[in-house]
Formats: sequence, structure tokens, C-alpha cells
Amino acid sequence: MYTFSTKIRVRYGETDKMGYLYYGNYAQYLEVGRVETMRSIGLIYADMENVHNVFLPVAFYETKYVRPAKYDELLRIETTIPEMPDRFIKFHTKIFNESEELVNIAKVTLAFINGQAERLRSPDFMNEALKPYF
Amino acid sequence: MYTFSTKIRVRYGETDKMGYLYYGNYAQYLEVGRVETMRSIGLIYADMENVHNVFLPVAFYETKYVRPAKYDELLRIETTIPEMPDRFIKFHTKIFNESEELVNIAKVTLAFINGQAERLRSPDFMNEALKPYF
Amino acid sequence: MYTFSTKIRVRYGETDKMGYLYYGNYAQYLEVGRVETMRSIGLIYADMENVHNVFLPVAFYETKYVRPAKYDELLRIETTIPEMPDRFIKFHTKIFNESEELVNIAKVTLAFINGQAERLRSPDFMNEALKPYF
Amino acid sequence: MYTFSTKIRVRYGETDKMGYLYYGNYAQYLEVGRVETMRSIGLIYADMENVHNVFLPVAFYETKYVRPAKYDELLRIETTIPEMPDRFIKFHTKIFNESEELVNIAKVTLAFINGQAERLRSPDFMNEALKPYF
Repeated sequence: MYTFSTKIRVRYGETDKMGYLYYGNYAQYLEVGRVETMRSIGLIYADMENVHNVFLPVAFYETKYVRPAKYDELLRIETTIPEMPDRFIKFHTKIFNESEELVNIAKVTLAFINGQAERLRSPDFMNEALKPYF
Repeated sequence: MYTFSTKIRVRYGETDKMGYLYYGNYAQYLEVGRVETMRSIGLIYADMENVHNVFLPVAFYETKYVRPAKYDELLRIETTIPEMPDRFIKFHTKIFNESEELVNIAKVTLAFINGQAERLRSPDFMNEALKPYF
Repeated sequence: MYTFSTKIRVRYGETDKMGYLYYGNYAQYLEVGRVETMRSIGLIYADMENVHNVFLPVAFYETKYVRPAKYDELLRIETTIPEMPDRFIKFHTKIFNESEELVNIAKVTLAFINGQAERLRSPDFMNEALKPYF
Repeated sequence: MYTFSTKIRVRYGETDKMGYLYYGNYAQYLEVGRVETMRSIGLIYADMENVHNVFLPVAFYETKYVRPAKYDELLRIETTIPEMPDRFIKFHTKIFNESEELVNIAKVTLAFINGQAERLRSPDFMNEALKPYF
């Protein structure tokens, strides 16, 4: 299991009429959480696409909204890779506000495909980067 | 059970580098599906907030991405209210592309609150509008 | 000169904490206005990219926010092509609310490039579709 | 004149089918540039709204797209307040990529209003915070 935290401040344009972070905008925060978690162990997602021709489209996504996130709050996005990837990779994320109260829980599962949309298994360089943590 | 369909065309700004509708942008399509489904039985969500002081924040959301949605495709958003609301209201949505292929399945559960963030039950005017379908 | 109107309803996720359509979200409405204006004279922008390898990135954009657009308002996006395109194509847009009050004025200028990012002139098929209106 | 720089990394969900940061998403970057520039001299925009009942809606916005911004690039948003605010406040912004090449130039003018949408002049606490730089 590997866990990494990154911080994101809620932008004005991401709030909605209710005054809170719009429920659909969490998906970008989860994306940033995943990308920075991978970067922290040397996996640059941009290179996966541009150099290795491996793409990770989201296959499943489930989330519970625990309390609202307010404008200008600096949220902590805690992302966990709970198990070694194979045909899919899972990311479990908890989002906390500045008082370390739980804001959101999410589980996102991504597939591996190449540029021709053919399904792949987790590439070797990813497995090697992750292996020390499992 | 009550089902209603509305159509949304994928905007350029909603696609991502992969060339498809970004996974986080489906949430807005589901929102439009819910709002138009309510409008079709005389429930104007804007009035619920502005006139009745009832707000519907999303509590749970789960979704499966079945196939990608492309730029400029005219998607059909088929929204079902599967049961009478009580402390929550559920919306089950299927999104189809122009070939009537399934693109996405989603289940969204919303709570009822007032402007002071106090939890409510489904308001009478909503129950009355929905009752004929259950 | 060629003018065409299309309608867009303001989504909840497009509003911000101030309760109005976020200033950055007008750009998508302008995009839809351009795309539907082109479609109305037989120019499918998706085909321009996919079939003709012609892309139209935005080069300049200026806009004046006259009055706020509210959640759930059905806006009218009136898009004008003021002159024949050459190395650029211009779109002048006025956005009106349901009371036909002016909400926003915008001028957007786009360049023509191919997939290798080389600058092009307006393609023949576009010139032919537009010529009758000038 | 007061200038401040902040950095923003381009998110996947902010790119479009062309593979670059969507032209409409720059507005959020400019917003973050403004907010962080104000924060750097002790002006918390969230407090302006929540404590002082002063809101800054955008009135005018003009921008030139010089070169595309790519996914995962860490952009530098250089925001300048060129003159003391009065009935409006102006922000001039230049966005640079990691090679310090110019990506975008923008000028945004915001008005001052209160919660009743009445026009105000620049509040005293803002004038005092800015005065040392002019």
C-alpha cells in the first residue's frame, strides 16, 4: 500500500451557487491526487502517454460527500494505492479540510489502454516503481 | 418509477487530451438529466431553492464508464427516479450515444437541506408531483 | 455578414459562489455559438478536424460582462461572422437573457492551423459556404 | 505598480481534444493569479466577501493566446496591478511556460459591488494595502 498527500486550494470558479465546491469538480482534485501520487514515486503520467503510449481512462468511480468544501479552503488530498495494479489500478482518496475534517471519500478504478484503445496490463515500469510498497 | 430523457451535445471544452468527454464532466450531464427530469413533472429546481428554501446536495455518486463519448456527439441522458424520495432522492442515469450504445451508468443520491444546512425530508410538493408514477 | 442564434440553459455547475454564471464559463457558450453557427451553413467543426485536418485555435478574445446570467436561465447566444475569413476568422457574439436583456458581448478571433501546427488560410470549403452571405 | 507570480500546473481535465489547455480555462488561472496577488499583500478575497460584503465581478476581459500550454506544464502566472483602483481594479497578467516562453497575455477589469449589487468604490483597506506600491 502506498499513500501520498497533496494540497489543492478551492478556486472561485469551482464553487457553485450553493457556495461550495461543485460535486462534479472533485473529479479533477482526485485526478491531481493520482498524478502527484504517481509523480512522488517517479511515475510521470504525461510521459506514460507521450513516451510509453499507455493511457489510463477511468472505468469506475464511487464517492461519498461527507461535508462541503468551501471557497479558498486548502484541502488535503490523501491518495492511496491499495494493491498492486494488474488489468486495473485502484486509487482510494480521502479529502480533508484545513481543520482535518473529512470532506470526501472516493474510490477510482482506471484501466490501461494503448493509443489504439486496446486493453493492456499494468506496464513493467509501473510495477517496478510500486513493488517496494507492497 | 419515473423515467425521462434529455439530450446534450458534447462541447469541445468538455473533452480532454485523450479526445473524449472528461470523466469529471459527466457530473454536469447527470445534473442536467436530474433537473430536466424534475422539470418534466412540474418541479423547477431553481424554484425549490429560491422559493421553497430546499437544496439538494449530492451525498453519494457511483458511476461506470462503459465507452468513451466523443466530441460533438449528441448524447441521450436517460434519468430514472427509481423510488419515492424520503430523506434522500435517488436518480439512476444511463447515457447513450447517437448509435444508442451505452456510454455511462450512474447512480446519484441527494439529500434535502434548508438554507441553514439542516436535513429535511422530501417536501410535500415533490411527493405529490411524483406519487402518480409510483 | 452571417448571424445565427442558439440557446443554452445555465447549469448549476456553471454558476459560482456569487450565484451567477462564472465569468470563465462564457467561453464554452461562445464556443457552442460558433459551432452551431457553422453547422447552420453546413460546416461541421468536428469534420474540419477529423476529415480536413484543419483546427481553429483561439488567438484573441475580448469580452464585456453587461449583467449577470442566473442559474437555469435560457440564454440566447447570437453569433455573427462579420467578414469573410482569411488568415483568421472572427466571431462577434451577443448573449441575451430570457427578457432579451443584453448579458455579454464578445469578440473572438481564431487562427487556422493543421495537425502539425502550421498556419493556414481559411479553407476553400469554408469560403464557399460563407460566400453567399457576404 | 505591484507584481506577483504564482504557479499552476495544467490538469488533465483542463486540456481539450487539441491536447492543450482549453482557451476558456485560462480564466480560472487568471482568477488564481489575482487572488494570490491580493493574498501576498494581506488581502484575503474570501474575507472581502464574507467579512466586508465586497464582491468583485469581472467587467471586462481581453486576452491574447500566444502559444499553447501543454498538459502537466507548471505555468507561471505573473499578475500586475498597474494602477491604484477606484471604481474598478485592473489586473494585467502574463502566463509563462516552464521554458519562460510567453503563453498568454490578459487584462481583466473588475468592478466593486456589495451584496445588494450596488456599485462601490475600492474599499479603504484595499487602498491602504496597495498604496505603498504606487
